[in-house]
Amino acid sequence: MELEALLKEIVERNRPLTDKGVVAHYIPELDKARKDALGIVIKAVNGKEYYYGDCDTRFTIQSISKIITLMLAMLDNGEEKVFSKVGMEPSGDPFNSIQKLETSLSKKPCNPLINAGAIAMASMIKGPDERARFERLLEFARKVTEDPSIDVNYKIYCGEKETGFTNWAMGYYLKGDGVIEGNVPAALDVYFKQCSMEVTAHTIAQLGLFLANDGVLSTGERVITPRLARIVKTLMVTCGMYDESGEFAVRVGIPSKSGVGGGIMSVVPRKMGIGVYGPSLDHKGNSLAGIAVLEDLEQAIDLSVF
Amino acid sequence: MELEALLKEIVERNRPLTDKGVVAHYIPELDKARKDALGIVIKAVNGKEYYYGDCDTRFTIQSISKIITLMLAMLDNGEEKVFSKVGMEPSGDPFNSIQKLETSLSKKPCNPLINAGAIAMASMIKGPDERARFERLLEFARKVTEDPSIDVNYKIYCGEKETGFTNWAMGYYLKGDGVIEGNVPAALDVYFKQCSMEVTAHTIAQLGLFLANDGVLSTGERVITPRLARIVKTLMVTCGMYDESGEFAVRVGIPSKSGVGGGIMSVVPRKMGIGVYGPSLDHKGNSLAGIAVLEDLEQAIDLSVF
Amino acid sequence: MELEALLKEIVERNRPLTDKGVVAHYIPELDKARKDALGIVIKAVNGKEYYYGDCDTRFTIQSISKIITLMLAMLDNGEEKVFSKVGMEPSGDPFNSIQKLETSLSKKPCNPLINAGAIAMASMIKGPDERARFERLLEFARKVTEDPSIDVNYKIYCGEKETGFTNWAMGYYLKGDGVIEGNVPAALDVYFKQCSMEVTAHTIAQLGLFLANDGVLSTGERVITPRLARIVKTLMVTCGMYDESGEFAVRVGIPSKSGVGGGIMSVVPRKMGIGVYGPSLDHKGNSLAGIAVLEDLEQAIDLSVF
Amino acid sequence: MELEALLKEIVERNRPLTDKGVVAHYIPELDKARKDALGIVIKAVNGKEYYYGDCDTRFTIQSISKIITLMLAMLDNGEEKVFSKVGMEPSGDPFNSIQKLETSLSKKPCNPLINAGAIAMASMIKGPDERARFERLLEFARKVTEDPSIDVNYKIYCGEKETGFTNWAMGYYLKGDGVIEGNVPAALDVYFKQCSMEVTAHTIAQLGLFLANDGVLSTGERVITPRLARIVKTLMVTCGMYDESGEFAVRVGIPSKSGVGGGIMSVVPRKMGIGVYGPSLDHKGNSLAGIAVLEDLEQAIDLSVF
Repeated sequence: MELEALLKEIVERNRPLTDKGVVAHYIPELDKARKDALGIVIKAVNGKEYYYGDCDTRFTIQSISKIITLMLAMLDNGEEKVFSKVGMEPSGDPFNSIQKLETSLSKKPCNPLINAGAIAMASMIKGPDERARFERLLEFARKVTEDPSIDVNYKIYCGEKETGFTNWAMGYYLKGDGVIEGNVPAALDVYFKQCSMEVTAHTIAQLGLFLANDGVLSTGERVITPRLARIVKTLMVTCGMYDESGEFAVRVGIPSKSGVGGGIMSVVPRKMGIGVYGPSLDHKGNSLAGIAVLEDLEQAIDLSVF
Repeated sequence: MELEALLKEIVERNRPLTDKGVVAHYIPELDKARKDALGIVIKAVNGKEYYYGDCDTRFTIQSISKIITLMLAMLDNGEEKVFSKVGMEPSGDPFNSIQKLETSLSKKPCNPLINAGAIAMASMIKGPDERARFERLLEFARKVTEDPSIDVNYKIYCGEKETGFTNWAMGYYLKGDGVIEGNVPAALDVYFKQCSMEVTAHTIAQLGLFLANDGVLSTGERVITPRLARIVKTLMVTCGMYDESGEFAVRVGIPSKSGVGGGIMSVVPRKMGIGVYGPSLDHKGNSLAGIAVLEDLEQAIDLSVF
Repeated sequence: MELEALLKEIVERNRPLTDKGVVAHYIPELDKARKDALGIVIKAVNGKEYYYGDCDTRFTIQSISKIITLMLAMLDNGEEKVFSKVGMEPSGDPFNSIQKLETSLSKKPCNPLINAGAIAMASMIKGPDERARFERLLEFARKVTEDPSIDVNYKIYCGEKETGFTNWAMGYYLKGDGVIEGNVPAALDVYFKQCSMEVTAHTIAQLGLFLANDGVLSTGERVITPRLARIVKTLMVTCGMYDESGEFAVRVGIPSKSGVGGGIMSVVPRKMGIGVYGPSLDHKGNSLAGIAVLEDLEQAIDLSVF
Repeated sequence: MELEALLKEIVERNRPLTDKGVVAHYIPELDKARKDALGIVIKAVNGKEYYYGDCDTRFTIQSISKIITLMLAMLDNGEEKVFSKVGMEPSGDPFNSIQKLETSLSKKPCNPLINAGAIAMASMIKGPDERARFERLLEFARKVTEDPSIDVNYKIYCGEKETGFTNWAMGYYLKGDGVIEGNVPAALDVYFKQCSMEVTAHTIAQLGLFLANDGVLSTGERVITPRLARIVKTLMVTCGMYDESGEFAVRVGIPSKSGVGGGIMSVVPRKMGIGVYGPSLDHKGNSLAGIAVLEDLEQAIDLSVF
């Protein structure tokens, strides 16, 4: 079967699954997403592109942004400094858990992809003030996704900021432990904005392609070293799908990062980037039908790294 | 021996112990306390008063204020509403621990005398804004201690507010769980101010007397019901001395509440209130020599409730 | 009202509450208790005795035995050795919780009245083998309760031993941490037998009287020092009613220890011992109607230590 | 450079590192290992074999056996039954941690490669009694490693059994939660024996080759399905190196499983199996120089799956 036909077949086969999940609704604006939306974009390293379904719908990038912030934090501060502030280990806890910050001996977030670690990364983006720091992050996001249209959904940003109390709690707790060196509200401001950037499945597929190419843009420009690209891809395997990462690795086996906006960004090393959109979520916060689409795709064309 | 002579003997016997502790220094201003200061005031229900040592030194009330806020919160909201927001159980954890807020099924602070519970209480003091709310609390504090001279040490208040990151974290975490209903910075502002009220050993001995009289002032005015007084005294036994409460109950057996400013406020029901000051602390945060003074006093004149 | 009439009135008023609880049924034999049974015995220091209701029903002593084992462990090993193996602090966790054994820095059970601490105490009873060690404990139990009829219900003992897997887990965990020095199955054998001793409300009222008299039998013989008696009574206040101890202290305020067999043993210092039997339990494992009976009794004749 | 020369160069370059670790010594017999021993065996899918260093030294397989038991447990019970008893997620805790068994809602061990999960797997090996069950496991181990010489080191087995109290605790805790259905001592007996099987670096390299071939022996016989092989390899990535798995995935990126006997078994999918031996361990329990050897090898010939 042609790949495009395959994508259509897989998306339509899994669309009924969207009925079993729930659209994120912790902010009113988020719950406006069409529950049965589902789409996939594949961008291959040879320049070819395949897609089907709801690929032009804009949605907030949410936790997928943690990948972008991690890369810029490493560029701004170096790998060593970054990993003096966060670990590299899966946490075994939900993404917004605070207890290990208290109980772990190291006093640092387990990894940069749980909320606490991501807030720490946001605090490490350089710039004279939070506005400038986020501007740099936004420019960097536009660059690595090759999508100049990315912008913040300010209604969602304000909602996140006004209701994200657990994130505020984590920010202050990290400050108390010295993980965050600067101002807490500034770090959280960067974090809430980064989560509220709007993208499409095309945007995140391009980000996946960037990582599949080990950090090189379609123009040939190298933005991060292969070493940094590998760190990112590895963390996506072990920690990318919240506390469903282990099961996802077994079922699908492709380095991926999800967001509660419904996106999943996947990387098939040296082969392709994949962007999936499906806002109906399972109880871990991952796109329910999106995971099924990736699982079917992997079984059809064997993309697992394992 | 006369009681006054006994007090002198006990204070001087225990003063060398102050050498083994450490004065709180998490805020620069706090560490100006004289490390070997030690004093005790006893106010009996028959109106007699006995004291010896450093009884006129002003120090910040710190956690002893949690008793005052708890009483006003119960008056403002009723016992039932208050204990829908905090529990009555000892926590078994340090005073500033955050993990049980996440792991406990009830999602409420274990009791009103750990920091999380006390911040919840501060959020329940009524008033149009945080200024007015603290003013009410301050007036209530002056009333139940019969000490109109109480005021905030603003240098310490600012220090607490600027460095109390774990308290900020708890405030936001409680907001996320719905324990705090209002504004978080407002609740914390009340909390940091209440901790920074300056008192002497006389002030807190009077507070102890008020509770020994089951909530009646020296004027005969009843301020709280015997039921509320009993709740307070009971919580002092089970939770009043941080995570040293169990051992203190065994060694001393008098309902007490300590603060890192060096104070201990004790209640011998129907007999007397006791105020102790000794800023050199043990590693749990309790006055090292202060506990020893209370233990010796109890052994000399049998005050234990057990 | 005469005290005997009062007891009748209180018991009958609260008997309907037994309907709302549940009889322990983790072992088949236990669930044979009559759910609506309820009785109370008061033994005053002046030798007078008052009782009403189901006071002659035999039931297993369960956790109330922890008080007896603690006393003998202190006699056998000294206070210092005992408290090098267990703490004196409330745990804030359910009675059979294992997690703090791993997370606490001290690596010892919080107190001797949670299961882990009680198993540690059972391991400290002296004797050449587990048979002899339990025989000594049984003799000691008969002595302090002045009830030579106490014996083990072997059907329940076998049931406890065969199904008490969490207790087995704790025993081995404590061995790994060096808290238990001897053989684990031997310690558990003592523990399961001590829990399976059968008593009546009279038996435990007499134990309460022994503690109310600070460790002196009706014959005038002193068995434990006042110091040890006080340790026991204090631990009963802070840890005696499982993780309902704080609320019980507020509501009732009498040092008490409960067991899932339905018993509550209470001590009014220098006044009386109280034994209550009511096998219908609340979800914390305490006698539902038994607590209500004590609360009503305390309100009628003011017995609180606070 | 020839591969054999490369291996020599890498082993000798890293041998000095053995000085910085420590040989396991929780059982006297274990600490007899030569601390500076270091060796590596590579077995390629094309039948070629390369090795250098201490490759014929026998050592106990320890946690690497968990891979073998997991495979047989899946063959005996099916994937679905197995993963109804253990999860697939990294735990974020040390291998012998017990607390998540209590705090996790699922009440099952996080994954089959931490001790609790491995003991659950051992309980699922079929057979009339523990002797027969271990015999089946031993035969299976000999088959998948194609090494008929594997046998138990009974001195170490007895040591593990007599001192492995935390494992005993976990076994009983799992029984209490219904994760272990059969007899606890039987399950532990299988577990302690499996850990005490003696192998060489050749043996575990062959096991790695078996997995690299997706479950096919050198004879061409398929023993497990590709699906099961993939589950195993994926769990090795996320959970194979204790709570150093995340960092190892970043540094080396080859699915691997370590044991405190000093072995590391690695799989380069569709390419080769690798066996490393180096008994000097880092503080997480992994072969210190062994990890360095794998890291250097990966950088020399690019074996990472990422």
